[in-house]
Amino acid sequence: MNLTILGCYAATPRTFTNPTSQVLEIRNRLFLIDCGEGTQVQLRKNKIRFSKINHIFISHLHGDHFYGLVGLVSTFMLLNRTTDLHIYGPKGIKEVITLQLRLSNSWTNYGLFFHELESDKSEIVFEDEKVVVKTIPLKHRIYTNGYLFQEKIGDRKLNLDAVQNYEIDKCYYQKIKNGKDIALEDGRVIENDKLTFDPIPTKSYAFCSDTVYDESIIPLIKEVDVLYHESTFLQSEEVLAGKTMHCTAKEAATIALKANVKQLVLGHYSTRYESIQLFKEEAETIFSEVLLADDGKTFEF
Amino acid sequence: MNLTILGCYAATPRTFTNPTSQVLEIRNRLFLIDCGEGTQVQLRKNKIRFSKINHIFISHLHGDHFYGLVGLVSTFMLLNRTTDLHIYGPKGIKEVITLQLRLSNSWTNYGLFFHELESDKSEIVFEDEKVVVKTIPLKHRIYTNGYLFQEKIGDRKLNLDAVQNYEIDKCYYQKIKNGKDIALEDGRVIENDKLTFDPIPTKSYAFCSDTVYDESIIPLIKEVDVLYHESTFLQSEEVLAGKTMHCTAKEAATIALKANVKQLVLGHYSTRYESIQLFKEEAETIFSEVLLADDGKTFEF
Repeated sequence: MNLTILGCYAATPRTFTNPTSQVLEIRNRLFLIDCGEGTQVQLRKNKIRFSKINHIFISHLHGDHFYGLVGLVSTFMLLNRTTDLHIYGPKGIKEVITLQLRLSNSWTNYGLFFHELESDKSEIVFEDEKVVVKTIPLKHRIYTNGYLFQEKIGDRKLNLDAVQNYEIDKCYYQKIKNGKDIALEDGRVIENDKLTFDPIPTKSYAFCSDTVYDESIIPLIKEVDVLYHESTFLQSEEVLAGKTMHCTAKEAATIALKANVKQLVLGHYSTRYESIQLFKEEAETIFSEVLLADDGKTFEF
Repeated sequence: MNLTILGCYAATPRTFTNPTSQVLEIRNRLFLIDCGEGTQVQLRKNKIRFSKINHIFISHLHGDHFYGLVGLVSTFMLLNRTTDLHIYGPKGIKEVITLQLRLSNSWTNYGLFFHELESDKSEIVFEDEKVVVKTIPLKHRIYTNGYLFQEKIGDRKLNLDAVQNYEIDKCYYQKIKNGKDIALEDGRVIENDKLTFDPIPTKSYAFCSDTVYDESIIPLIKEVDVLYHESTFLQSEEVLAGKTMHCTAKEAATIALKANVKQLVLGHYSTRYESIQLFKEEAETIFSEVLLADDGKTFEF
């Protein structure tokens, strides 16, 4: 699982900072999360192949999280994309994208599917054989969701020495990997845990931006491997954070601690501060495993 | 009069090239022309003060000419702008911008005025005491206008030596600058051209992008000082140019020649070519005064 930060600053694109967008690669799937203005240029700069992006998850309809989406949809068109593209986001996202395509008298030559969200409860929005994606309802000034990406538990790993030792036919291997016990021809039953190892541990990633401090998300993100949590402000701007429905670095760390996550990635920084290092220092007073997102940075987990 | 090119490449923003946007400064007014994705970052990079932009002219609703507009409108809001902003562009532009503001549950704290265009005839869209702006109807795949920016002829310049020589009272000066003759107390009438010099020569700038080769614009742009004319392709792609309703460098130069303009600026280049120098070479076979637009370049006229 790896995470590339295309942009992680609040409010507006600037000369050296980009609004929110990131690419999560998990079990060979590439998920684009949020798409602020300039995302397509950031994808190019970070050498991410446009054709590998088939699913885009938008948290909310503030400009710094989705103004780059229509441009990306159009560029896919110019690149003669043919693969389906799925966009997940708040109700309204379909109207705003299709209106712009209609006004330019153009349409995509690929299937463009909108999955509009309205629920204030967590729901599964994507699922295939290896990964499941759920919404994390967040509290912000407008309807907002974070997203939880979870690897599914895979098959158990075959203990080749053991199965060969018992002279078990290959046609039973999948059954064994599925966790079944096996009856031998002589009548003995071999328990599955003698024939297999535990499957590869699964990983999970929770993206939570933008949100006010909200402990109600904790059950949803409990013990995730990586939590990306917004920290627009430092504790010195606590009041402003509450008023604008954002978080401080200390509040993000408190959520990480209470949810017992393995690692916390901070982002969505206001550009008012001299150094993002200040966010790390503040968060580390509460929680030890803190990483700082920054544009162009890739994390391997 | 000076022109700063923020972006002049066709189709999509790339790592080192930007879609169409430019700033014309004429008689101390700053006009933003087109606003592709990333324009606000280009404004910052070129150190153009956001607060000086009060009028934005959009040629047409293809993404590479206006996807940066909503972000700029939002950033003005975050910068606590209070001055009115006027946006001129095809019908539909108001809906697409206001829909996005509505979805983000935000509104501008400044006056936002849309001047939607539908006419296929040239019309005056802006006029004050020093500058007039007219549309140049263009032929493209969707409804498109170029824009003609003309300085108005100013007052005649007072010949101070002459008026003092005739002992003319200062209260007549404005009348003289307006071109009137003056009757002296002794009955003599002094003709205006003995009391004044010609006013400062006026300048004009025509922006024509995107368009197919179209001689019907020639009467509108006749003898302008500077013509910016799109040249998406070279003559080797003449057929493609016609099909996509764009021009070649040679065609742009032909328009410049037939309209007898003083200087031609080429732009809206397809990124398929190795060097934009090829556009200049091709245009110069037809017309001698050719300049190449490029991102970040400023021309003084």
